[in-house]
Amino acid sequence: MSSPARFAGVLSPVITPFCDDLDTHPDMLADHCRWLLSQGVGLALFGTNSEGNSLSVGEKIALLDRLVDAGIEPSRMMPGTGCCALSDSVALTRHATALGCGGVLMLPPFYYKGVSDDGLYRSYAEVIERVGDARLAIYLYHIPPVSQVGISPALIERLLRDFPRAIAGIKDSSGDWDNTAAMHARRWDDFRIFVGSENLLLENMRAGGAGCIAATANVNPAAIYALYRHWRDADAPARQQALAELRAIVQSLPMIPALKAITAHFTGNRLWRNVRPPLLPLDDDSGRTLAARLAGHGFTWPGRAPHTAADENSR
Amino acid sequence: MSSPARFAGVLSPVITPFCDDLDTHPDMLADHCRWLLSQGVGLALFGTNSEGNSLSVGEKIALLDRLVDAGIEPSRMMPGTGCCALSDSVALTRHATALGCGGVLMLPPFYYKGVSDDGLYRSYAEVIERVGDARLAIYLYHIPPVSQVGISPALIERLLRDFPRAIAGIKDSSGDWDNTAAMHARRWDDFRIFVGSENLLLENMRAGGAGCIAATANVNPAAIYALYRHWRDADAPARQQALAELRAIVQSLPMIPALKAITAHFTGNRLWRNVRPPLLPLDDDSGRTLAARLAGHGFTWPGRAPHTAADENSR
Repeated sequence: MSSPARFAGVLSPVITPFCDDLDTHPDMLADHCRWLLSQGVGLALFGTNSEGNSLSVGEKIALLDRLVDAGIEPSRMMPGTGCCALSDSVALTRHATALGCGGVLMLPPFYYKGVSDDGLYRSYAEVIERVGDARLAIYLYHIPPVSQVGISPALIERLLRDFPRAIAGIKDSSGDWDNTAAMHARRWDDFRIFVGSENLLLENMRAGGAGCIAATANVNPAAIYALYRHWRDADAPARQQALAELRAIVQSLPMIPALKAITAHFTGNRLWRNVRPPLLPLDDDSGRTLAARLAGHGFTWPGRAPHTAADENSR
Repeated sequence: MSSPARFAGVLSPVITPFCDDLDTHPDMLADHCRWLLSQGVGLALFGTNSEGNSLSVGEKIALLDRLVDAGIEPSRMMPGTGCCALSDSVALTRHATALGCGGVLMLPPFYYKGVSDDGLYRSYAEVIERVGDARLAIYLYHIPPVSQVGISPALIERLLRDFPRAIAGIKDSSGDWDNTAAMHARRWDDFRIFVGSENLLLENMRAGGAGCIAATANVNPAAIYALYRHWRDADAPARQQALAELRAIVQSLPMIPALKAITAHFTGNRLWRNVRPPLLPLDDDSGRTLAARLAGHGFTWPGRAPHTAADENSR
């Protein structure tokens, strides 16, 4: 069986909608996914900004099934499947791969700190061997500011040597361009390097990178995708600058509640504000203020079906 | 319905046995629990040293059921039930409480870092309200070196004010006596303060604490329990010193693999060496060397039924 095509471009760590009782809302999620795809952006479900680790494995499996049933193309999905427990990572990765997901974004097990590269190698190797599916494409997820457990170039090299088919790339959310550049310098064959912020997108493309997986692609997908498509053009630095200004506005408040408040404001669906603890939602005022500041920088919310009361009642 | 009696004494974060395929081994776990109870030590299952976060919620529920079916007294169990996902914490806490567990040891959600006390308050409050069981007794789990998310005295005070019945105590694994002392100074009513190392047991008892929940109680339970019982005696400082010396030997290697290597050595059951990734097992030599060093300090392995080949085959 041939390997699936590897990802390139812009993906959004898709924010996860919750009902007021904090249950997931699959229909709202499907709508958001359809809109993101229409803007050129792929679906990194269950990432950090998706509150992915605030969902049980059962909830994640059920959401993937619902999305596929709703006609969302699984090849455009790169769900987060790396859990603390090997048994969870295997179950979720196996399910996502069997569904036809184009890849998975895999955190290392993140409870124990200061673990060895040997231990992390064994974690990834066990998942790959237990899933045992030639379609499996793993994008390693390096986000030391949150996970506190990082993925070193030496570990990547060892995994690539032993699993060249399964190890497809990395999301580097270190925020440290030197780390990204060090990976580019290794020139691993067809290894897809994504940066974790659109602020580094132009630099990453110039270095031979694959794109970015960026939180703000939830609210500003088309403009980020436009920079990806036009990074060789003369106006690319201006596009990059404009993206950075919009991102700074979103980041002026905690990222996940801010993304949700903005989405709630523009869609008119206040359920979008809901977050699971330990996060806290922003209030309506914050959403309005953020929206006004974004509009002041020329931001417009791209075409999207208006929200209706029926949306809130369907799950 | 009356509240259950609160815990006091010594508990062991029970190490979790795995088969060679890394599946759990419920019968070996039940044997180990019976032995710990026979040595006077309670059962803090699924703690950090139990590799609790390396088990899925389904695996933890199945193990609790098997232990209760095997006749292990649930009132002596304080399983770890705090997960990253609210839905997981609720499901596991609900199950443990319904089984009659004497309490649960609850980590805060530990994926996101730098979260607010308001967010952590909301996490615990949601679990308490959703479980909705008057028998629920929560021991907060403060272990910032690993979880990187701590529990402040201000948060405890707020939880105690709103949930005086459900919030029963804390395990302070900060290793920082000043933090433990600051909690003692608040003189919260019947709030059970456990330290996370036997090295602080005497100090904790003198300050009015409830005992300790200590990794090495897996291999040295009787001596730790003896200090707990005799902390007012003249020889208590000598007992404390002897415990510290034994702990230093165990800690000369990574704690969890070391505990398992020692247990494998003394029981003659090599399955005990198995750990789940990202941890790595020690080899036979390490177990022998640790055992010899412990014996050199007068350590003897308390009576325990000898291991038979049949044990390895039964699950």
